[in-house]
Amino acid sequence: MILCVALNAALDVTYTVARVRWHAANRVDAVAERAGGKGTNVARVLHALGEPVLLTGLLGGGTGELIHRDLLDAGLDARWYATAGESRRTLAVVDTSAGDATGFWEAGPPVTATEWAGFVDLFGLLAARCEVAVLAGSTPPGLPGDAYAVLVGVARGAAVPVVLDADAADLSAGLAAGPDVVKPNRDELARLTGRTDLAAGAEELRRAGAGAVVVSAGADGLLAVTPDGRWRARPPQRLAGNPTGAGDAAVAALARGLRDADPWPDRLVEAVALSAAAVARPQAGEVDLDVYRDLRRQVRIEEVPPCR
Amino acid sequence: MILCVALNAALDVTYTVARVRWHAANRVDAVAERAGGKGTNVARVLHALGEPVLLTGLLGGGTGELIHRDLLDAGLDARWYATAGESRRTLAVVDTSAGDATGFWEAGPPVTATEWAGFVDLFGLLAARCEVAVLAGSTPPGLPGDAYAVLVGVARGAAVPVVLDADAADLSAGLAAGPDVVKPNRDELARLTGRTDLAAGAEELRRAGAGAVVVSAGADGLLAVTPDGRWRARPPQRLAGNPTGAGDAAVAALARGLRDADPWPDRLVEAVALSAAAVARPQAGEVDLDVYRDLRRQVRIEEVPPCR
Repeated sequence: MILCVALNAALDVTYTVARVRWHAANRVDAVAERAGGKGTNVARVLHALGEPVLLTGLLGGGTGELIHRDLLDAGLDARWYATAGESRRTLAVVDTSAGDATGFWEAGPPVTATEWAGFVDLFGLLAARCEVAVLAGSTPPGLPGDAYAVLVGVARGAAVPVVLDADAADLSAGLAAGPDVVKPNRDELARLTGRTDLAAGAEELRRAGAGAVVVSAGADGLLAVTPDGRWRARPPQRLAGNPTGAGDAAVAALARGLRDADPWPDRLVEAVALSAAAVARPQAGEVDLDVYRDLRRQVRIEEVPPCR
Repeated sequence: MILCVALNAALDVTYTVARVRWHAANRVDAVAERAGGKGTNVARVLHALGEPVLLTGLLGGGTGELIHRDLLDAGLDARWYATAGESRRTLAVVDTSAGDATGFWEAGPPVTATEWAGFVDLFGLLAARCEVAVLAGSTPPGLPGDAYAVLVGVARGAAVPVVLDADAADLSAGLAAGPDVVKPNRDELARLTGRTDLAAGAEELRRAGAGAVVVSAGADGLLAVTPDGRWRARPPQRLAGNPTGAGDAAVAALARGLRDADPWPDRLVEAVALSAAAVARPQAGEVDLDVYRDLRRQVRIEEVPPCR
C-alpha cells in the first residue's frame, strides 16, 4: 500500500462566468467543486492504476467534509486528522468568452502545535503499515518549518521509503532528512538552487540529502540523477492538453517504482507516460489509461554521462 | 418580534490580494467570511437597535453551518429550514493596490418542491407569533416564480403585515399578493416599470398591489407613496462610505415603523437616518448608532403633491 499525505488538501472550486467584468459584480453561471491538491491527485492516479493507496493529512470544517466526501465518491480510502480550522479552497474563475482562467489560492487553515503533534503520531501508525510514503504539496500556516523533515524522519525510522514533492522552504527543509526521491519541477529547482542547468541543480539537491532527484521539465520530459546513474526521459511528441496534474502523475509512477524497486529507466518510462496521460485529461488527478498504455512503449530514454 | 426571511442566505467571502494578476494564479493574503444577504442584514440592523428579531430561511451544508454560526455569534436567533443543497457564497476579490473589488455571486442551492413546501409551513408557524414579516433578497434556483407571493399570502392570512424588498420577477410576482410595503431602489423600479420618474413608477407598483411604495434613491434619500400621502425624505448632506447595506437599513426602519403604526413622515426620517448610519460603516448589516442618533434630527421631509 502507498500512503499519500495531503497536509493542505483543498477544495478546488471552479466558477464559470460568461464574460468576467473585472472591478464589478458578476453572476456565476456554474459552480463546480472537487477535492484537489498534489497529495490527493497522486492518490487518485495510483487508484486509477489499481494500486492500493491510503490518503492521510489534515482536514477541517465543512470544506473538509466536502473534500472527504468527494474522495470517498472516487473510491479512495482515507484516515484524516481533523483540525479545528477549516480546510482551504482554491478558486479558478473561468471566463468562457476570453477562454482563460484566473486563479485564487487560499493559504490554508491555521494548524496548532497540538494538532501537528497528533498528526505526526497518526502518520507514524499509518506509515508503518505501508510500503512507500508520498509527501506532496504545500503546507498550511502554523506548521513548523521542518514539517516535511519530521515526516521523512518518521517514515525512515519505520524503514518506509519516501517520495517528496514540495516547493521552496518545504523542499529545502525536507532534503536534510534524506528523502529517497524528490521531484522538483524546473522552476522549483531553479528557485531553490539558483541554477538553470537541470543536472547541476539536481546534483546539488542530492548533496543536500536527497537519494535521487527527478526534475520534471514539462514537454521536455524528465531528468533523473540517482545513485545508479543519470537519465533523460522524453515523450515521443509534444502533447496538447492540461499540464496541471502532470507532475502529480509522475510522482505516482515514481512511488510505485520505488515500492517495486524497479530499475530507474523503467520508472522514468512509466513517469513520462503517466504524465502524458494526465495532460490528455482536463482534470488534474485523472489519467487517460489508453494514452498511458500507448505512450509507455514510445518514451525515449537516454543515459546522461556523469559530471566531470 | 419582527420575522426576517432570508431565502437565499449567503456566506460573504472576501479575498484580499495585494495586486491581482488577471488570467494568472494569485496567492490570497487574507480570507474573511461573514453571513450576508439582505434578509440577514435587516435582522442585524434591527438587533443593533435592540429590537426583538427572529431570522428564518433556507440553509444547507457546511456553508450553511458557517452562516448560522456567524449569526449566532452576532447574537441573532434563527429557525432555519435545512436544505440538502449547500448554501451559496458570494466572493469579493479586493485588490489592495488598485483599491477596488471584483464580485462573484453564486446563484444558490437547488431547492426541491418538498423543501419549499416544508419551509412555507415553517414560515406560517413563525409568522403567526410575529408582528411583522420582512421578505428581502434573491431567491435560490428551484423555487416557484411566485414564492414571495405565497409567503405574502401566508402572512396576510395570519394578519401579519409584510415588507417586501426584492428585485425583478420576484418583486413583480410578490406585488400581486398585496404586501404592505415594498422598497425598490431607483434601478429596480426603472427596470420593472420602464419609468425613470420615481413617483410615477411608485404609483404603478401601488396599482399592481403594494400598500405603500418606498423608493430608495441613494444620496437623494427616499420617496414614499402611501395611502396617507406622498413624501420625499433627504439626508442633510451626502455621506461618504459603503452604500452596500444602506437599503437593508432602510427596510429595518420601515419594518419597525410598520409594527408600531408610526406616522409615515416619522418612518421615513428613521429610514433615512438609519441608511446613512449604514453607509458610515464598512460592513453591510452594521450601523453607526452615533450617526443614526445625530442624523434623525436633521433629515429633511417634504410632502409631494398628489398626481394630477
